[in-house]
Amino acid sequence: MDTPWQQTSKEASFLCSTLTVENPFQTHDEFLAWFQSRRTATRFVVEQIPLAEMDQWTFAKNPHRLVHRSGKFFAIEGVRAHTNYGPVPEWDQPIINQPEIGILGIITKVFNGTRYFLMQAKMEPGNVNALQLSPTVQATKSNYTQVHRGKLPPYLAYFLDHDKARILVDQLQSEQGARFLRKRNRNMIIEIAEDVPPHDEFRWLTLGQIKQLLTVDNLVNMDARTVLSCIPFTNIAWKHYYAATSQDYPDHFDVFGRRLTGFAKDLFLSLLDRRPVRHTLDEIISWFTRLKTRYELEVRRIPLDKVRRWEQTEYEIRHETGRHFSVIAVSVQAGNREVTHWTQPLLKHTDYGVVGFLTKKFDGTLHFLVRASLEPGNLDIIEMGPTVACSNAEARAKQPNHPPFLETFLQAPPEQVRYSAIQSEEGGRFYHFQNRYMILELPPDTQLDPPEHFIWMTLGQIIDFTKYSYFNIEARNLLACLNPLEDRE
Amino acid sequence: MDTPWQQTSKEASFLCSTLTVENPFQTHDEFLAWFQSRRTATRFVVEQIPLAEMDQWTFAKNPHRLVHRSGKFFAIEGVRAHTNYGPVPEWDQPIINQPEIGILGIITKVFNGTRYFLMQAKMEPGNVNALQLSPTVQATKSNYTQVHRGKLPPYLAYFLDHDKARILVDQLQSEQGARFLRKRNRNMIIEIAEDVPPHDEFRWLTLGQIKQLLTVDNLVNMDARTVLSCIPFTNIAWKHYYAATSQDYPDHFDVFGRRLTGFAKDLFLSLLDRRPVRHTLDEIISWFTRLKTRYELEVRRIPLDKVRRWEQTEYEIRHETGRHFSVIAVSVQAGNREVTHWTQPLLKHTDYGVVGFLTKKFDGTLHFLVRASLEPGNLDIIEMGPTVACSNAEARAKQPNHPPFLETFLQAPPEQVRYSAIQSEEGGRFYHFQNRYMILELPPDTQLDPPEHFIWMTLGQIIDFTKYSYFNIEARNLLACLNPLEDRE
Repeated sequence: MDTPWQQTSKEASFLCSTLTVENPFQTHDEFLAWFQSRRTATRFVVEQIPLAEMDQWTFAKNPHRLVHRSGKFFAIEGVRAHTNYGPVPEWDQPIINQPEIGILGIITKVFNGTRYFLMQAKMEPGNVNALQLSPTVQATKSNYTQVHRGKLPPYLAYFLDHDKARILVDQLQSEQGARFLRKRNRNMIIEIAEDVPPHDEFRWLTLGQIKQLLTVDNLVNMDARTVLSCIPFTNIAWKHYYAATSQDYPDHFDVFGRRLTGFAKDLFLSLLDRRPVRHTLDEIISWFTRLKTRYELEVRRIPLDKVRRWEQTEYEIRHETGRHFSVIAVSVQAGNREVTHWTQPLLKHTDYGVVGFLTKKFDGTLHFLVRASLEPGNLDIIEMGPTVACSNAEARAKQPNHPPFLETFLQAPPEQVRYSAIQSEEGGRFYHFQNRYMILELPPDTQLDPPEHFIWMTLGQIIDFTKYSYFNIEARNLLACLNPLEDRE
Repeated sequence: MDTPWQQTSKEASFLCSTLTVENPFQTHDEFLAWFQSRRTATRFVVEQIPLAEMDQWTFAKNPHRLVHRSGKFFAIEGVRAHTNYGPVPEWDQPIINQPEIGILGIITKVFNGTRYFLMQAKMEPGNVNALQLSPTVQATKSNYTQVHRGKLPPYLAYFLDHDKARILVDQLQSEQGARFLRKRNRNMIIEIAEDVPPHDEFRWLTLGQIKQLLTVDNLVNMDARTVLSCIPFTNIAWKHYYAATSQDYPDHFDVFGRRLTGFAKDLFLSLLDRRPVRHTLDEIISWFTRLKTRYELEVRRIPLDKVRRWEQTEYEIRHETGRHFSVIAVSVQAGNREVTHWTQPLLKHTDYGVVGFLTKKFDGTLHFLVRASLEPGNLDIIEMGPTVACSNAEARAKQPNHPPFLETFLQAPPEQVRYSAIQSEEGGRFYHFQNRYMILELPPDTQLDPPEHFIWMTLGQIIDFTKYSYFNIEARNLLACLNPLEDRE
């Protein structure tokens, strides 16, 4: 595994790290044991409380909304959306307003020629299992301006002062547009040359190890997934490497002496392939331009107590049908956080959602069915998203006008399932918000006639658009779970 | 000139058309004679009138603003901007609000193997010379929904119904963020296979001819420039062609049997060069992410009669210092428009502005100094822009806190000037708004230490970001004036 690539190119070092699952500092089993020990070692009690019993949160006026007394962190507000997209032309809903750009950051470092990532075992009140594997840093502006008067989160200083850091990834990426109003975070991966001081809740893992952990339900958190999705896996260095090592493409495919087979090989080839098998870059941009021109979205902030069809009870703000989500309050007692007790609101989801990509081969190259996704919190009308992203999936599937292809995922035959795991959305804002992340591969002869807001793209095309911030968090986080370098032989 | 490229690739056909200045349908001199004849043949009288004498325009309330009685077209509104970018943290100003996406479109067609563009001689009330060369179509939604009850503009149907059209360019691009509130247009180039009916005000020109006309002051209008700036001049086909024809790069350079020299060669090499001589794509995205995170922009709509430091007289809404611009009203009598008499407001500029790029070679490759530009009408805080974009340039240069590098352009020695011409901004919204468009090339040993909101990029990198809608209209329209294929020998 000691090749010149490790020294010369960050892309190649990401590649090597993905191929590395043996970690001399911490084996897979040692990691799991440590992670379990963190879960039991830490006192972390989350209880739902009446909305009125939150101590630093209150309903403010003009407009009516739920805010922190400091004016910082986030607010729960009401919005009224109008659109000519989809079956519902107008609706009201609560939404999280947090108009500041936070940092989601991972520190990386090369030890003995292999790149490692400093990951954190972090408790969040909304996690179904309290503890999940998180980036080195998850910091709101409130965090680093110390609004809550706690300790500065470990390692945050490296992200604020770049003198000691080499920036490898630094992209502004959006959060869930169905739940957040125009929220974005700065997704960063930085390399630190100096010795990084150890902390109890942090461990160095290879990308290969993290990819393994992404096959486990609810282990790697949303913030880690979005940062990992920004890693520049397609780059000219790869193509050169590929050209140098591939003998008789596409029947043989070899990375660092290993032969890729099956779906991993298909993924890798789709990653490298930006040829216009289906659509050129210009055609995809034209498709997106046409939809942005055609679809209108008007989002107006309204008082939270004037949100039609939503009602407030002692314990929650809920939709009259019980669908969608509800706003609840929790009390948290924690032993390893910056402060040890707090209360806060969370958006509660009761049932599982589905986040899925349909894939299919065209002329032997795997393509992903991308959907133009319009959400009230989008900064610019639509974003590119996965084929399906739908909360409360089973209930939605029984309603008329449910999203196209939802049933395809709910009824998928096992032989089409290429990836399937339950993943949690951010536990600092969402209570038990879980989605089944799925990749299906349809047989090449499947006849599909997707509506106009769908388009087929290769993985390489998707990664290019991701870099320019065109893809939504559901798509990015699902793709982060894939491992195009999985060693199948 | 008859090569397989003409048939196989749209990029190559754009290249061929750029190299073609001999037009058998219409020579350069014939075009100029025809254009002059259109100017004299058409009655077009523009008179400034009191604001109150506009017949379809009125001041509406809640908030106070200037609107068309139909509610369509555009409105002049007030905004209050807060930012931590630049020397002025807060200001009020009038701004044009036109919250709909129009179409700026050019029809193209291949005759005898050469691609031609259907350009229009179009009168606009704000043009200094009434008539300018315009795209085939400039249509607001009001145009094609026929709010003004005139004739449907010629050729618009081809852009609304794509059955007969092959789309070559289709990008959503922004307009001036200092004057328009989040205004964008769909920039399109479409190819029509069937015979296109002729109209008196339209002529077929090659890209080479249009590039020649872009060296003339105030001849090619803003809308034509922005559409032309979207042409995909960098593409893999070019690289292949370049590799096949370039014998001993970079000393010799040859396109279709012609040798490029001087600045044209430098431009062409910079266009093809996306190697990270100065900054990689990831580094540029990191730079932009950092600035978007650091700089805040809050723009609030306020009543037009509450815009501080602006005053309304009988004939205009003006800044108390007389600087910036003023809102005026004009009466128009025209013989070749959809309607023959109308009144409307325009934004009047009294002095010339400067729109300029500083360029410099690094390791032999020409780089452009790109500025992160924050304007109140930007959709997303900042856009990438030219080194300098400044209205009323001479007056601004005498004030403290004027934009960096403005004096470099005003005092440029002739030997550094690679392009210089006066170009007009859109005459349907602006009255006599003229900028001197300039490209300067600084000697390679020039020491510059640009502030953090500047970055050096190759032309190829700029074109890539343009495709993803990162560049503002000032930068795009200046770059449209350049001809990297100019035949210098």
